[in-house]
Amino acid sequence: MHTDSHTIAAIATANGVGAIGVIRVSGDDAIAICDKVFKGAILSKAKSHTLHYGHIYDGELLIDEVVVSLFRAPKSFTTEDSVEISGHGSPFVLEQMLQVLIRNGAKMAQPGEFTLRAFLNGRIDLSQAEAVADLIASNSEAERELAMQQMRGGFASELKELRTQLIDFAALLELELDFSEEDVEFADRTDLIQNVKDIQRVLGALKKSFQYGNAIKNGVSVALVGKPNAGKSSWINALTNDEISIVSRIAGTTRDKVEAQLNIDGVLFRLIDTAGIRITDDEIESMGVQRAMETIQKAELIVFIFDVSDTSFAAFENEYKEILAQNPKAPILVLANKIDIANGKRISIDENFSKVKNLIFVSAHNTADVQVLKQKMLRTINELKATESNHIVSNTRHYEALQQAYSDVAKVLAAFDLQITSELIAHDMRQAINSIGSITGEVDIDQDILGTIFGKFCIGK
Amino acid sequence: MHTDSHTIAAIATANGVGAIGVIRVSGDDAIAICDKVFKGAILSKAKSHTLHYGHIYDGELLIDEVVVSLFRAPKSFTTEDSVEISGHGSPFVLEQMLQVLIRNGAKMAQPGEFTLRAFLNGRIDLSQAEAVADLIASNSEAERELAMQQMRGGFASELKELRTQLIDFAALLELELDFSEEDVEFADRTDLIQNVKDIQRVLGALKKSFQYGNAIKNGVSVALVGKPNAGKSSWINALTNDEISIVSRIAGTTRDKVEAQLNIDGVLFRLIDTAGIRITDDEIESMGVQRAMETIQKAELIVFIFDVSDTSFAAFENEYKEILAQNPKAPILVLANKIDIANGKRISIDENFSKVKNLIFVSAHNTADVQVLKQKMLRTINELKATESNHIVSNTRHYEALQQAYSDVAKVLAAFDLQITSELIAHDMRQAINSIGSITGEVDIDQDILGTIFGKFCIGK
Repeated sequence: MHTDSHTIAAIATANGVGAIGVIRVSGDDAIAICDKVFKGAILSKAKSHTLHYGHIYDGELLIDEVVVSLFRAPKSFTTEDSVEISGHGSPFVLEQMLQVLIRNGAKMAQPGEFTLRAFLNGRIDLSQAEAVADLIASNSEAERELAMQQMRGGFASELKELRTQLIDFAALLELELDFSEEDVEFADRTDLIQNVKDIQRVLGALKKSFQYGNAIKNGVSVALVGKPNAGKSSWINALTNDEISIVSRIAGTTRDKVEAQLNIDGVLFRLIDTAGIRITDDEIESMGVQRAMETIQKAELIVFIFDVSDTSFAAFENEYKEILAQNPKAPILVLANKIDIANGKRISIDENFSKVKNLIFVSAHNTADVQVLKQKMLRTINELKATESNHIVSNTRHYEALQQAYSDVAKVLAAFDLQITSELIAHDMRQAINSIGSITGEVDIDQDILGTIFGKFCIGK
Repeated sequence: MHTDSHTIAAIATANGVGAIGVIRVSGDDAIAICDKVFKGAILSKAKSHTLHYGHIYDGELLIDEVVVSLFRAPKSFTTEDSVEISGHGSPFVLEQMLQVLIRNGAKMAQPGEFTLRAFLNGRIDLSQAEAVADLIASNSEAERELAMQQMRGGFASELKELRTQLIDFAALLELELDFSEEDVEFADRTDLIQNVKDIQRVLGALKKSFQYGNAIKNGVSVALVGKPNAGKSSWINALTNDEISIVSRIAGTTRDKVEAQLNIDGVLFRLIDTAGIRITDDEIESMGVQRAMETIQKAELIVFIFDVSDTSFAAFENEYKEILAQNPKAPILVLANKIDIANGKRISIDENFSKVKNLIFVSAHNTADVQVLKQKMLRTINELKATESNHIVSNTRHYEALQQAYSDVAKVLAAFDLQITSELIAHDMRQAINSIGSITGEVDIDQDILGTIFGKFCIGK
């Protein structure tokens, strides 16, 4: 893929008509190429971090009035000489300027190629590069914070430290191999095992944080479950009342029909109606039921609604168990709905209900109840955040690498237990070192993987 | 409307996800406001035209990693202190940064408010401000050139000169009024009339250039006229073959169904099929015929296609006259189509055809013929350009003001002829001065008119 040293150029602003549009140029010849087409100042004689008003010409033909930003290596995004040309925001005019740059020696940048260069040139690590894309795609405050944390180093520094420790341990074990005939032990086994256990604990905590991180990154998927008359629609309306639906690109959109998006204090929730499916119904083979089941299975939060004015505890329990069987991991909030009707009818509520975890007696018509549910939803998600790790993993690739590293480390510990040879232990350790390194890009990353990561970036980034 | 002196801010790049997004801030407090939220350098101590890497904070909360461009008054787009914040191109993150700026004292800019300020502060005249919007909306090379020419002064300097002359003449006439009892003539009538005639000629030429300017600005509307079997579809296909249809916003789109857009050497043509309407048909009351008539009436270029292998000269002439009756002004290109079939059948072609202006014998299957038509279309439009004026008017408001000025000047000349009092002549002259001044904004422009002009701009411009 893109590892050449050409000077690259691309339109960096969003596609469409705007007041301003920016073209980015980076590489050894960036300044020389721009000097060929820009009249206003001689950029090759100008200082870094200066702005220059002038015009872009195609030979004699004036193309646009622009302001040019000059960044000299290494103080630029890519660490290369870079020029940003800010012109009028017509896609047509920007395209023309880009073509002029290409005719004068620049090469059209591939998606993510600027960020790839920042990575390859050592300015940022791979997880930081990935965070750039996440930041650009962020749609909620929580998502933005997560991306920003990762961009500023985040768990990468923690991982780098763990990795260095493992490298040191592996080196000690390998040293023993060199002296194997003398049967020495450079590494104190008890200390070593304790240290590796510590590393495993940190990896485990990071791994666990993915449940929260992934929910935040894609929006928390909330399955609304309950019988047709339970009041799901009323609750969707009540929750989304006064909410401006956020028109947005959600990464990894599901095929589920999202009824509404709800932003509660910066966290995005995607409400998915399970379409009034009766979980306890016999006709489980129907498509609709199948899809409802899948929605529940994939949900990161379940809101189970039942009509408390018309449901026995036994019937409730039955339904609750069915839901739990579908998804034992996701937190469940239970709405004993229509409490106003129950109170109106003076129905005595089975006292067993009071023992159900996370059950609240509510009415969708009661504004205070709506607020209570929202805060409960937010709190439930924030509880997922409270892992032992200070950092949150939100990237599936990182999660998979962490899982790999965790199981590699588990193998190391098992090998110590079984008193397997240092040679094999060192090998497993190298595997773990490699898995961790693949997250930050400290090991050689396969070109295909780089292609996949940066191919998802927009052009100009 | 917007005439306050608040510091304004807006997202200036196109809406949507991009690599980079830019927020523009302008006004007396622009630098102070940015200093409150930007960590990286103290902007109030920095020089104009410098770039600063850093971060935008909302209190303690890090919002984005940015590069800030600093422009000090008067060397900025608005002539005010201005800051441009270049951050990650997430609409969400950009909106958050904008909100932080607003909470710190900036006001959300209205559409076109930056350009309005550039006008009100005297950096550009009104016609230049309008050209900024035209440039941003430009979709073809010819359109871009037209906007750029207008932005660089274009006919405005010519108009300013004419206006100054008229002001001088009016002043002389008014001076005579002060001395009216002495019956002096400061202005030599013969010279004066000759000068005013010169002015009228220039105004007339500019006015005439609008036919070309308007066609270029909106794309030249080409009505394809001919009987159902004449071969219109084949010609649309032949013309647009290998053409990438330009997906674009065309100012003042018509309700006509544009079959295809065609860019011939930088000029945009919009091909409108008149849906095989038989002009000579009796059923003229049908809706379809009515619409075809309107298309012909509004067309800037007519391409009349007939089947030369199957049309008598009399039938042709009949149809041609009908078209001419609908639109006597637009140039007509005549395609004597299916010449290959005629030759194959060895049909003798009526020699009267050879006398028809702009008639070419063609076949849509002949690539050379397609090129001939394209070049003929382009040449026909470029002939419109060849007015006596070096400059092209493309803005309807300017055209109307020019028409007004032209008729005001005509009144002045008539008044001289009729030897009407200097008082009335001076009055008509003032009218013309005002009409011309309204184009460049040298006279007080009604706030409503400014509102209309700048309201069409995008936000951030």
